[in-house]
Amino acid sequence: MLRFYTAGESHGKGLVGFLEGLPAGLEIDRGFIDRQLRRRQLGYGRGGRMAIESDRVEVLAGVRHGRTLGSPVAFLVENKDWANWTAAMSPDPVAGASDDDLRRVTRPRPGHADLAGAVKYQTHDVRDVLERASARETAARVAGGAFCRTLTACFGVEVASHVLAIGAARVATGFESLPLAAILAIDQDDPAGLRVADAEAARRMAALIDGAGRDGDTLGGVVEVVAGGVPPGLGSHVQWDRRLDGRIAQAMMSIPSAKAVEVGAGVEGAHNPGSLVHDAISYDAAACRFTRATNRAGGVEGGVSNGEELRVRVHLKPIPTLRRPLASVDVEGKQPFDAAVERGDVCAVPAAGVVAEAMLGVVLAEAFVEKFGGDSLAEMRRNFDGYMELVRGF
Amino acid sequence: MLRFYTAGESHGKGLVGFLEGLPAGLEIDRGFIDRQLRRRQLGYGRGGRMAIESDRVEVLAGVRHGRTLGSPVAFLVENKDWANWTAAMSPDPVAGASDDDLRRVTRPRPGHADLAGAVKYQTHDVRDVLERASARETAARVAGGAFCRTLTACFGVEVASHVLAIGAARVATGFESLPLAAILAIDQDDPAGLRVADAEAARRMAALIDGAGRDGDTLGGVVEVVAGGVPPGLGSHVQWDRRLDGRIAQAMMSIPSAKAVEVGAGVEGAHNPGSLVHDAISYDAAACRFTRATNRAGGVEGGVSNGEELRVRVHLKPIPTLRRPLASVDVEGKQPFDAAVERGDVCAVPAAGVVAEAMLGVVLAEAFVEKFGGDSLAEMRRNFDGYMELVRGF
Amino acid sequence: MLRFYTAGESHGKGLVGFLEGLPAGLEIDRGFIDRQLRRRQLGYGRGGRMAIESDRVEVLAGVRHGRTLGSPVAFLVENKDWANWTAAMSPDPVAGASDDDLRRVTRPRPGHADLAGAVKYQTHDVRDVLERASARETAARVAGGAFCRTLTACFGVEVASHVLAIGAARVATGFESLPLAAILAIDQDDPAGLRVADAEAARRMAALIDGAGRDGDTLGGVVEVVAGGVPPGLGSHVQWDRRLDGRIAQAMMSIPSAKAVEVGAGVEGAHNPGSLVHDAISYDAAACRFTRATNRAGGVEGGVSNGEELRVRVHLKPIPTLRRPLASVDVEGKQPFDAAVERGDVCAVPAAGVVAEAMLGVVLAEAFVEKFGGDSLAEMRRNFDGYMELVRGF
Amino acid sequence: MLRFYTAGESHGKGLVGFLEGLPAGLEIDRGFIDRQLRRRQLGYGRGGRMAIESDRVEVLAGVRHGRTLGSPVAFLVENKDWANWTAAMSPDPVAGASDDDLRRVTRPRPGHADLAGAVKYQTHDVRDVLERASARETAARVAGGAFCRTLTACFGVEVASHVLAIGAARVATGFESLPLAAILAIDQDDPAGLRVADAEAARRMAALIDGAGRDGDTLGGVVEVVAGGVPPGLGSHVQWDRRLDGRIAQAMMSIPSAKAVEVGAGVEGAHNPGSLVHDAISYDAAACRFTRATNRAGGVEGGVSNGEELRVRVHLKPIPTLRRPLASVDVEGKQPFDAAVERGDVCAVPAAGVVAEAMLGVVLAEAFVEKFGGDSLAEMRRNFDGYMELVRGF
Repeated sequence: MLRFYTAGESHGKGLVGFLEGLPAGLEIDRGFIDRQLRRRQLGYGRGGRMAIESDRVEVLAGVRHGRTLGSPVAFLVENKDWANWTAAMSPDPVAGASDDDLRRVTRPRPGHADLAGAVKYQTHDVRDVLERASARETAARVAGGAFCRTLTACFGVEVASHVLAIGAARVATGFESLPLAAILAIDQDDPAGLRVADAEAARRMAALIDGAGRDGDTLGGVVEVVAGGVPPGLGSHVQWDRRLDGRIAQAMMSIPSAKAVEVGAGVEGAHNPGSLVHDAISYDAAACRFTRATNRAGGVEGGVSNGEELRVRVHLKPIPTLRRPLASVDVEGKQPFDAAVERGDVCAVPAAGVVAEAMLGVVLAEAFVEKFGGDSLAEMRRNFDGYMELVRGF
Repeated sequence: MLRFYTAGESHGKGLVGFLEGLPAGLEIDRGFIDRQLRRRQLGYGRGGRMAIESDRVEVLAGVRHGRTLGSPVAFLVENKDWANWTAAMSPDPVAGASDDDLRRVTRPRPGHADLAGAVKYQTHDVRDVLERASARETAARVAGGAFCRTLTACFGVEVASHVLAIGAARVATGFESLPLAAILAIDQDDPAGLRVADAEAARRMAALIDGAGRDGDTLGGVVEVVAGGVPPGLGSHVQWDRRLDGRIAQAMMSIPSAKAVEVGAGVEGAHNPGSLVHDAISYDAAACRFTRATNRAGGVEGGVSNGEELRVRVHLKPIPTLRRPLASVDVEGKQPFDAAVERGDVCAVPAAGVVAEAMLGVVLAEAFVEKFGGDSLAEMRRNFDGYMELVRGF
Repeated sequence: MLRFYTAGESHGKGLVGFLEGLPAGLEIDRGFIDRQLRRRQLGYGRGGRMAIESDRVEVLAGVRHGRTLGSPVAFLVENKDWANWTAAMSPDPVAGASDDDLRRVTRPRPGHADLAGAVKYQTHDVRDVLERASARETAARVAGGAFCRTLTACFGVEVASHVLAIGAARVATGFESLPLAAILAIDQDDPAGLRVADAEAARRMAALIDGAGRDGDTLGGVVEVVAGGVPPGLGSHVQWDRRLDGRIAQAMMSIPSAKAVEVGAGVEGAHNPGSLVHDAISYDAAACRFTRATNRAGGVEGGVSNGEELRVRVHLKPIPTLRRPLASVDVEGKQPFDAAVERGDVCAVPAAGVVAEAMLGVVLAEAFVEKFGGDSLAEMRRNFDGYMELVRGF
Repeated sequence: MLRFYTAGESHGKGLVGFLEGLPAGLEIDRGFIDRQLRRRQLGYGRGGRMAIESDRVEVLAGVRHGRTLGSPVAFLVENKDWANWTAAMSPDPVAGASDDDLRRVTRPRPGHADLAGAVKYQTHDVRDVLERASARETAARVAGGAFCRTLTACFGVEVASHVLAIGAARVATGFESLPLAAILAIDQDDPAGLRVADAEAARRMAALIDGAGRDGDTLGGVVEVVAGGVPPGLGSHVQWDRRLDGRIAQAMMSIPSAKAVEVGAGVEGAHNPGSLVHDAISYDAAACRFTRATNRAGGVEGGVSNGEELRVRVHLKPIPTLRRPLASVDVEGKQPFDAAVERGDVCAVPAAGVVAEAMLGVVLAEAFVEKFGGDSLAEMRRNFDGYMELVRGF
């Protein structure tokens, strides 16, 4: 059983992560975690705040001398801007403060949780909602995901993502289903931080972002997340809530701005006849391994991982905070107003890719813990190795 | 807290449903449940088995004199074919039976859980897996979903689905985002059981299905599920696993053959700039209600229902059991073979729509129970009414 | 992850069990399960109903040819009396039936869920509550527990119980902390079904029961449940809800009539100084095993099993349904009445011991699945063996 | 749904609490929380460390301007001693440090998680286990419980505890089942911090503690926790894991040193005939309320709260860390040694009472959230009031 939750508001003291279920004895490399946090902050089209912050994880519990203890891990990612928000976001009452000091917000922005959340939690200060609903929260997910990926990496699982589209600009077909190694190569080589393999498309995307920035508009896009080295047999067909693809879909759709999730051929596979969609099975006697020449299933059949690469696509709507005003209504007087902000990100698609990697890491670590049990890395490894032997001898 | 699980094998005694958390005092109409079961069995392109079975729910527990007791509901949907499978699927050992009597299967079909499941559960008789992984299991989901929809219907929630595409045949644009009333009308009027609003498209779809049937091929497609009357405030932005869209995505992706899930504008929204994607907010003073002229969000913002129609699309791959052989490998001798079946369904997309309605019903009932609490319908109604008053007075 | 739930009313069609998480390939002996069901029905002091019923499990799902499939197990234990209750407990409305036909109850019995449950679920027909709250439900627990014990038995775990006290009659001190083998021996040798090792005490108990029967009174008592062969390392100190003793306490306290639970020296240990309570640790080099000469801890230290026998005591209040009237109030007219029944059990303490064994089996199976993972018995065994090797080499 | 978890090691940076599910708009009084933390640290028989620390809660998330936001609450209770342990408990590797610097422990203490935990998590440095298993962790529970009690207090629920026994010294019978008001009065009036109503018994207890301190021994005892103002209908009889008494039993047994839990008459009730154990029901027409002259059930019947005071007793073994040596074995060389400490607490029974109050608070808040739903205090109050009206009109 793995439990992963976050807490924290966007301008509060920081984001808190709670992660229980990692085996003891797992080596934690804080450099790796901070690198993931940094990757989340990069990307063409990010606004000013990203420069302010350079997120770092502070481990509060569960790790000693660089190794997990088996006890719950708790960590803090500080909000660098907190010093400017101590009144507005004080946990304690602030005597004699004006609405301005408290940065009260009564004007919900379309596309955010603002209005629906304010109604649900019955508050006329929309800040009570937007602080938690902010995508800033994903910093804690990225850190938690990095812990989880540290576990699955011990068993040879690698996770990476790349960008398939920004707005209407899309990579050429040949760049759609890149092998994992090619995706990993992008990360190292792409200074602009778009993480796009198709250089020509990257130029179009950058131009689109520049244009949207000038127009006060924003852009969404599509990312692909891939996990290689996944053993067959994660997830299960036996109950609807244990299917691996269902759990991945939940994790991906929970990413702010995600509005669609595909596994494997997904949308395209719905249009083709069965003879072109399913992956024929063959057997590689040398490797003692069932193989498939194609992977339209995206690594999951019947809710169970089949040993091929997990391939998932997430479609993200544009950032809802635009400089170009969207119409809205004040929750107090109910008068209409134009929701606009001075500055902000134009496009967060590459960052969403990093978050998607993290969430895939969380789901996979949970599936590993479930299937292989074990309270120490040594025990889990033994269980894993024993299973892989069964797989090869199947 | 709502708990909904199913048990049962495709050719065993029947499918069992376990559903806990419905309030006491809810009137259960078995006609409604059986009607949903019947709807699942209809649809152009279904094969012979559908004729054999006419599913009916048998309530084993939790309902007395037509009303729920608050205790867990258990029900059975019998497998009509069970009489012919008592040896092959006997819970007890069968002495002196041949592999043939026991209908042993060693040849996994591509696109099914067959191989991945057999490796996971370490069995060389693939029947041990395929019996549970069969889409027959969705009969129990449809029955369970019907119980859940009975609850949400008390609060004015209506759920319906229609078909947007079968293979390459798609409805015209004007039929894509139909109002709920129009979708409900299809159901009554469509004798062919395709549940398509666009009659011209329906003809193309039927022709495609006929053609695929002749070719021994199968077809997938796209369904849209819509829920109207959903109050604002279901789900929550405060934790990743409580977001309503994430929970819907899991439930939808758990449907056999589902490979992609969209909420609202989903895939399309990723291509457009923010100014064309987010739904401007206005206020209808007469109705004391915030409104939106568009609903590209599909009824969820920030993981919370916003009071608009929930609109979800599910993309389904073609049925993996083809008459036209796909290549595979015998798990015992590892020799290649051609996986083929004599007969079977060509297309189950309309049925998948019924399952999607059921799963949306389950997720919504769970969200209602969470938000409104209450152990009797009277109590829950009072809580609901009180909240809706707060919403109107917000 | 193990999920075990029951459904079913006392005079409905039967009790349903849902059990998910057992590995595939586990041999199921229905004789063993039915034997446990039979043991629950025996015991000095049981009334007439026990004679009517001779419970048997009918497996509905999850088992094929005598082995688990990995899919959820569902089973039914029929209520033999159902034929006489088809109107009173019909799931469907019964037209034209009188309150008498429907066996409506408006008079709550003290000591039962009757009144609290009726208020909670807002019903004036107390039967809606008492049917589910009846101890009859424990038949499903015993069957489910038997499945679970079948799993743990593969790893050398044996569970047994005996009776320490019936009312004021208690076994002599020497019979309090019997070795497991001695407890197992009682079961075979005790025709009266009291399952008491101390023959002299058994006579006093039988006499007490006879006397209470004559007086129209009822008796409670104390049972001890013991599990031997439990490996060290089940449960965990790292989170409050994962402590093995806490989970055992919940499972035991959930048994109808249970009002106190002790682990190890429990009540007595609270009175003695630490020097007399904690178990000194030594090392048996020949067996490569840490040992303890005493086991006042009852096999759990810090929420973790320590490899000694698990020893748990459950204190049961007398059966609340007395022939000798208790005062109560009609829920409709609020007039006082005397709650009395014609006949019924005088003492169900030995039966409660069987239920306690079952619940301990459920908790232990859950802990095994958590610690050792694995989807097939072969895989789980390999994981278990690997861990036990680590334990011996520690 | 309420989720409450803690993280943190005894000598790490601090204890972290994660608490999700409180409604928005709940006023948080940090003075109240810190007062509970202080109460945990007091009590006759506490050793030196209590003087070092004066615990205070630092809210990291979920509270703004003194009110909950509905988002998860996270808090930190710092370990005052952390400055002296930065090397020994550093999350990062410490280069060139000796075993002494790192305060490595290879000698498990009987009665603690030390040995069982080290085997489970496969570590030869027992500190990896004892840091998390330490009762210091209960500080986070007390803080979390204080948040929960703040919620239930809004609905009139009061929780208090008192001490019934320290070792062999027990209060006189008349002081056993004190009314809640009398228990609350003790707290204010007892400077010694034993929280015993019977002054004569308190003197004997203090003397026992002094004696045990001189002997290098430790003492356990018995606490009673009581909650008044609990509405009928919390918990449920419908499933074993939803019974309120079972959930209370788990929460209580999870307290370090707890070895037995009683609800109501518990142990004593098992010895008496039914006619003396069950509580007759009457009706108070003026108050529109069912009443019971006795409360041997301890406020729970059939797993459901019945509106009477919840009365729970927890039996605690003596603190396992004694100055007087217990025999043990070094995990590395397997040589025997005598486990002894220089100083430490002699008795933590009054502190355990405070922890038991906290855990009862957690269980009750969870039951409230489940039954009354609601995302804001206003909504929850409306639901609660509506239910109480149904109760009165029942």
